[in-house]
Amino acid sequence: MSTMSTAQHLADQWPGERPEAARRLLAAAVDSFAARGFHATTTRDIATGAGMSPAALYIHYPSKAALLAEISRSGHAATLELVERAVQGSDHPVEQMRRLVEDFTAWHARGHTVGRIVNYELRALPAADFAEVAELRRRIEDLVKQVIEDGVRTGAFLATDARTAARAITGLGIDVARWYNERSTEAPEQLGLRYGELALRMLGAKV
Amino acid sequence: MSTMSTAQHLADQWPGERPEAARRLLAAAVDSFAARGFHATTTRDIATGAGMSPAALYIHYPSKAALLAEISRSGHAATLELVERAVQGSDHPVEQMRRLVEDFTAWHARGHTVGRIVNYELRALPAADFAEVAELRRRIEDLVKQVIEDGVRTGAFLATDARTAARAITGLGIDVARWYNERSTEAPEQLGLRYGELALRMLGAKV
Repeated sequence: MSTMSTAQHLADQWPGERPEAARRLLAAAVDSFAARGFHATTTRDIATGAGMSPAALYIHYPSKAALLAEISRSGHAATLELVERAVQGSDHPVEQMRRLVEDFTAWHARGHTVGRIVNYELRALPAADFAEVAELRRRIEDLVKQVIEDGVRTGAFLATDARTAARAITGLGIDVARWYNERSTEAPEQLGLRYGELALRMLGAKV
Repeated sequence: MSTMSTAQHLADQWPGERPEAARRLLAAAVDSFAARGFHATTTRDIATGAGMSPAALYIHYPSKAALLAEISRSGHAATLELVERAVQGSDHPVEQMRRLVEDFTAWHARGHTVGRIVNYELRALPAADFAEVAELRRRIEDLVKQVIEDGVRTGAFLATDARTAARAITGLGIDVARWYNERSTEAPEQLGLRYGELALRMLGAKV
């Protein structure tokens, strides 16, 4: 069954301490949310996709909203982490921004299905989960803004409205999740390289 | 009722020859698709939002998919038209691109609710409608690519992979529909001006 194999494949995205059944449920939830949207997905759809009964689902997650929250939280945590690594990997704003855009773009191409859910179903999150995810998003945007401001100060970037530019740069990467698919001819890393160049040009860096 | 007033407001987006009832239905469909997604919306939701009975809905549209197709087609036709106007408005690639990005960005900010549906529910379109909309999207992307290629040839823009740059520039505008909302502090036109500058810098234009 193709749903099961996709679910199995996606289960690799949630390694670590979670029980295997929880990972299968997260992967099946991604499949269902991507195919029908959050509101049209039932817990039964998700359980079936994971090869489990609805009762078995409730052992791990109290609701489909809890699954969405976990997908959204871990997706945002992963992107925040790669942004932090990019900033820590260099002292130079140009190199920080290059790696940041490369990795952020490649992540949204590679994980385009999760990327869509994480970015387009924000309004379906319960209030407490939304607040938590909004805080992760704020930290990502603040880091991008900080690199831009550092680069403007050192003369590596042209003067620019840092908030608008930060939004444009994160938006560029997020939008990749919308259109990228398995038939896309560019590898995620290749697209990352190209978007890295475009973003640096956008900031007026000499590249 | 707030749904009705939004529906009334949105009805202005479909002027012209359509009967008033058809425009109310389109506006109510936009409200419902935006709130719950296409798959979780019923024709009854839409009819209720338009203050009509389901039977009255079927006089105008055979299905909710027909409403989605009409929203998607007219949204894409409107953006193609503004892109064509921008290209026809000047002979200079820099001015063509500036106006194109300004208008495309402002459209996606102003019409962010329709913009989300038009861009995120493509996969829910029936095959024939999808093909028609895909053709409109191809024409938009081709025009953007053409302006980039013209600018590279005349030396107004730096050498660049035109297809990737075209995708980045349209993606930048489309992504505005994702995050823009009534609480956004920048007016659509102001955001358009800023994104126009950023896009020209991205292409290496001297601005």
